[in-house]
Amino acid sequence: MTRFVNVAAAQMGPIAKSETRTQVVARLIALMREAKARGAELVVFPELALTTFFPRWLIDNEAELTQYYERAMPGPETQALFDEAHRLEIGFYLGYAELAQEDGRLRKFNTSILVDRRGVIIGKYRKVHLPGHSEPQAGRQHQHLEKRYFERGNTGFPVWRGFGGVMGMCLCNDRRWPETYRVMGLQGVEMVLLGYNTPFDHTGHDDIDALTSFHNHLSMQAGAYQNATWVVGTAKCGTEEGSKMLAQSVIVSPSGEIVSMASSIGDEVITAKADLDIGKRYRETIFDFARHREPESYKLIVERKGAMPPPLADEVSLG
Amino acid sequence: MTRFVNVAAAQMGPIAKSETRTQVVARLIALMREAKARGAELVVFPELALTTFFPRWLIDNEAELTQYYERAMPGPETQALFDEAHRLEIGFYLGYAELAQEDGRLRKFNTSILVDRRGVIIGKYRKVHLPGHSEPQAGRQHQHLEKRYFERGNTGFPVWRGFGGVMGMCLCNDRRWPETYRVMGLQGVEMVLLGYNTPFDHTGHDDIDALTSFHNHLSMQAGAYQNATWVVGTAKCGTEEGSKMLAQSVIVSPSGEIVSMASSIGDEVITAKADLDIGKRYRETIFDFARHREPESYKLIVERKGAMPPPLADEVSLG
Repeated sequence: MTRFVNVAAAQMGPIAKSETRTQVVARLIALMREAKARGAELVVFPELALTTFFPRWLIDNEAELTQYYERAMPGPETQALFDEAHRLEIGFYLGYAELAQEDGRLRKFNTSILVDRRGVIIGKYRKVHLPGHSEPQAGRQHQHLEKRYFERGNTGFPVWRGFGGVMGMCLCNDRRWPETYRVMGLQGVEMVLLGYNTPFDHTGHDDIDALTSFHNHLSMQAGAYQNATWVVGTAKCGTEEGSKMLAQSVIVSPSGEIVSMASSIGDEVITAKADLDIGKRYRETIFDFARHREPESYKLIVERKGAMPPPLADEVSLG
Repeated sequence: MTRFVNVAAAQMGPIAKSETRTQVVARLIALMREAKARGAELVVFPELALTTFFPRWLIDNEAELTQYYERAMPGPETQALFDEAHRLEIGFYLGYAELAQEDGRLRKFNTSILVDRRGVIIGKYRKVHLPGHSEPQAGRQHQHLEKRYFERGNTGFPVWRGFGGVMGMCLCNDRRWPETYRVMGLQGVEMVLLGYNTPFDHTGHDDIDALTSFHNHLSMQAGAYQNATWVVGTAKCGTEEGSKMLAQSVIVSPSGEIVSMASSIGDEVITAKADLDIGKRYRETIFDFARHREPESYKLIVERKGAMPPPLADEVSLG
């Protein structure tokens, strides 16, 4: 029995600072309806899909800052999205800033949820790899203060059965780290859903930043191939509050091939009929982990956080 | 001070079963001379560069089998290569089948060495990720019996200071596994040297095998980018004893870009002037491991060898 998931990526153009949640949710619902009309049973929205990408600013006023977070999911303004999903019988992935009362305090996470076709949340993920800084950087036109505004996610990288397969989630910068896909791959993930907000000036080095689009696809294509999984990467893009952000949302097959890509820098739905059994052929041959992986040789990956080069004294004189 | 390594990949066309070591070494020396003449201070030869790729055959006769292995390095036939390296003042990487008297027994490894510009071996690596099978597979025109003819390497993935930077080695199938690059990346590797022998029928699935060339580059480009390292991948290629093998040797920058690629399917030298400080810019920003890696979330990578999907009972009814 071949198992297909009709999946959509719903790329979003910029969200202005002045846009209300209600306005944004209306855009999400329009994209969801198009995805459904084009046969999708699951639609993937971007990271932080309900607001502008606020980590580009230093916001010292706590009341102003917390306006960007959701205290409940669904909440008063997002309930309509869940209702529409239930009515249409379509699942979705949504990224948002989460304000959680946990361990006796208010905690902030960069979060995504997986919602089934009844409009019920079946999975939650909190972003592990927070990029950027906790303090503003001098000389940058746009800051990247995710390390200031969010705690490191405490969920790890779980997977969930749903939509006939094994589904995983991650967010934005997570996609550059092979560990992200591998931890899910070791749980048999068949489709990784991810949203991103990637400004073109994300490293501040012109030679690196000029390759932003290439690095985006390279990371997702390698993660897909090396773990025999579909990857659905969805951008918030275009020029948002003066910051230019990467588009090129893609659906990547377990072969590593891009099988669908957005062609605009605005709101746009792309779709693919994803055959989960493509991954099976890879998992049974070149990527049969049980036969071919050698964890004994991988210990440094968990024993060491930063890189430690060998001492300079090791240099061979004439080498 | 900008640090450059003038590096060459010396791709080799097929080696016939009937070719002697002396004949092969003469080819290696010719390639080494060309590399030197084109400014290289380091030349990378393929995996198992001294013989035909013998794991394609079931060889039950132990005396016949061990003819493919080196008992000493340098040995009587390979000494000339070391002498020429010393004379030219050029370093090299060489892959070969190693027969080692260790732990009171004869042991077989798929090995590579790093030799400095004095002709002195400064590093040895034994292949960790052995692909293929230990028993012949019915219905295959060419076998892939690396798991039969070699023990799993016992060196891990060390790095060495040499050629003004931090050098690492791996072999063929190692390049498909992100763990390979990451373990070296955590030791500050700046250039990964690797040789490969990749038959176009390596998985036996036509849809996967048709993408052999794409997967080869994808794996090396991702490994380079995600670890901010140069990667030099050198093929033995062409039609060898009836088996068609992948060419497209490449030198990959820490950007993940291919900056030099072979254009033939035979003996061919490609070169690049590799700026090791390109990697430095990546290591100080997007891939500053000490700031951004989260090993607490990676434990499954070493705790689990094979993939274990969640139980089917977890399926959400309408998900």
